[in-house]
Amino acid sequence: MKELEEKILKEGKLLGNDVLKVGSFLNQQVDTNLLLKMAKEVKRLFGDGITKVLTIEASGISFACAIAIEYGIPFVFAKKSKTVNLAGELVSASVYSFTHKTEYQIFVSKEYISSTDKILIADDFLANGNSLEGLIQIVEKCNATLVGCVVQIEKEYQNGGKVLREKGYRIEALSSIKKMTEKEIEFN
Amino acid sequence: MKELEEKILKEGKLLGNDVLKVGSFLNQQVDTNLLLKMAKEVKRLFGDGITKVLTIEASGISFACAIAIEYGIPFVFAKKSKTVNLAGELVSASVYSFTHKTEYQIFVSKEYISSTDKILIADDFLANGNSLEGLIQIVEKCNATLVGCVVQIEKEYQNGGKVLREKGYRIEALSSIKKMTEKEIEFN
Repeated sequence: MKELEEKILKEGKLLGNDVLKVGSFLNQQVDTNLLLKMAKEVKRLFGDGITKVLTIEASGISFACAIAIEYGIPFVFAKKSKTVNLAGELVSASVYSFTHKTEYQIFVSKEYISSTDKILIADDFLANGNSLEGLIQIVEKCNATLVGCVVQIEKEYQNGGKVLREKGYRIEALSSIKKMTEKEIEFN
Repeated sequence: MKELEEKILKEGKLLGNDVLKVGSFLNQQVDTNLLLKMAKEVKRLFGDGITKVLTIEASGISFACAIAIEYGIPFVFAKKSKTVNLAGELVSASVYSFTHKTEYQIFVSKEYISSTDKILIADDFLANGNSLEGLIQIVEKCNATLVGCVVQIEKEYQNGGKVLREKGYRIEALSSIKKMTEKEIEFN
C-alpha cells in the first residue's frame, strides 16, 4: 500500500538492532485517517464473509478495531495476562516476543470464538511470525475457520511470513520490507 | 447512554469482589456498532476543538480509536512498560491498578503531545480514578490543554470521579453505576 510505505519512509525511525519505530503514526500515536484507509484495503483484499477479527493486545488493537468497523463486525483481542476480569473457559497459546525477548501465554475467553466464525487475524508487525502463530493456534483450538492473516508491516527478510505461507495460510501484508539497513528501507 | 446501560444489564457479569465483566462487548470482544455510537455521543458531549485523544493500553485503545475516528484526529496511548521501540524523551506518571493490584509507570513519547494540543482523555472504566490521574499528569507535564475525560463506565460509588470533579476537571461517563450488588446493577 503506497501511502503506508511513504509514511514509513517519511516518519519511520531505525533504532538499530533491527527495530523500526513507527510510533508517530502506527503504534503509539495512531493516524486514524491512514488507519481507515488500511482497513478499506483489507476489505478489498479479503472481501466479504468474515465474521470476526482477532488480534493481540496492545499494538494490534487499533488495526483490528478499524477493520472490524469497516466490516461492521466485532473484534476480539487476546490478552497477555490472566486478569481478574477474564472468566469462564479460556483458550491459550504460547508466544515468543521479539520485542520483549520473552515467552508468554496469550488468552482468549472461549465463548468469544465459535466454530461458525470466519476469522481474520490482524496484527501490526510480522517478523518471526510468533504472534500470528499463537493467534492461529487459538483459532484452531476453537474450531473456527481461519480466513487469513493481515499485518500492517512485514519484515520480509525474516522468516515468519515465508514459513506460514508454506504451511498454506493466507498471509497479506500492507507493506513488505525487503531490506532494512541503518540508512535505508527497501520495500518489495 | 441508554443503549450502553441496556447492554451492561444484558451481558455484564458480576464476578464478585466488585468486578464487572464486560468482555463480551467492551474490553475483550468489542461490539464496534455500539462503539461507534459511543464515539458519536462523546462528540455530542464535547463538541469541536479537540486535537488529540489520549488513553492507556490496552482496554482504552478501542474507545480512544473510535472517538479519534469520529473526530478525524489522531490518538495516543500511554504504554505500561518501556519497550525497545519507545525512543526519544519520555513523559511518565505513576498509576495504581485496581484490577492488577499493583503500581506501575506509564509512558508517552513527549513528541506526541505538544503545548498546542487540546486533549480529551478516554478510558474504559473509572473507579478509583488512578488511570485518569496518571493520564492527566501526562497532559499537564506536556503543557497541553486538557479538555476533559470520558469513560465508558463509571463506578460512581467509588471515589475517583468525585475527587477529580472536585479538582475542577470535566469528567463525563457514558454510564454511571450507582450501586452494584451480586444480583443487581443500578444506574444513576
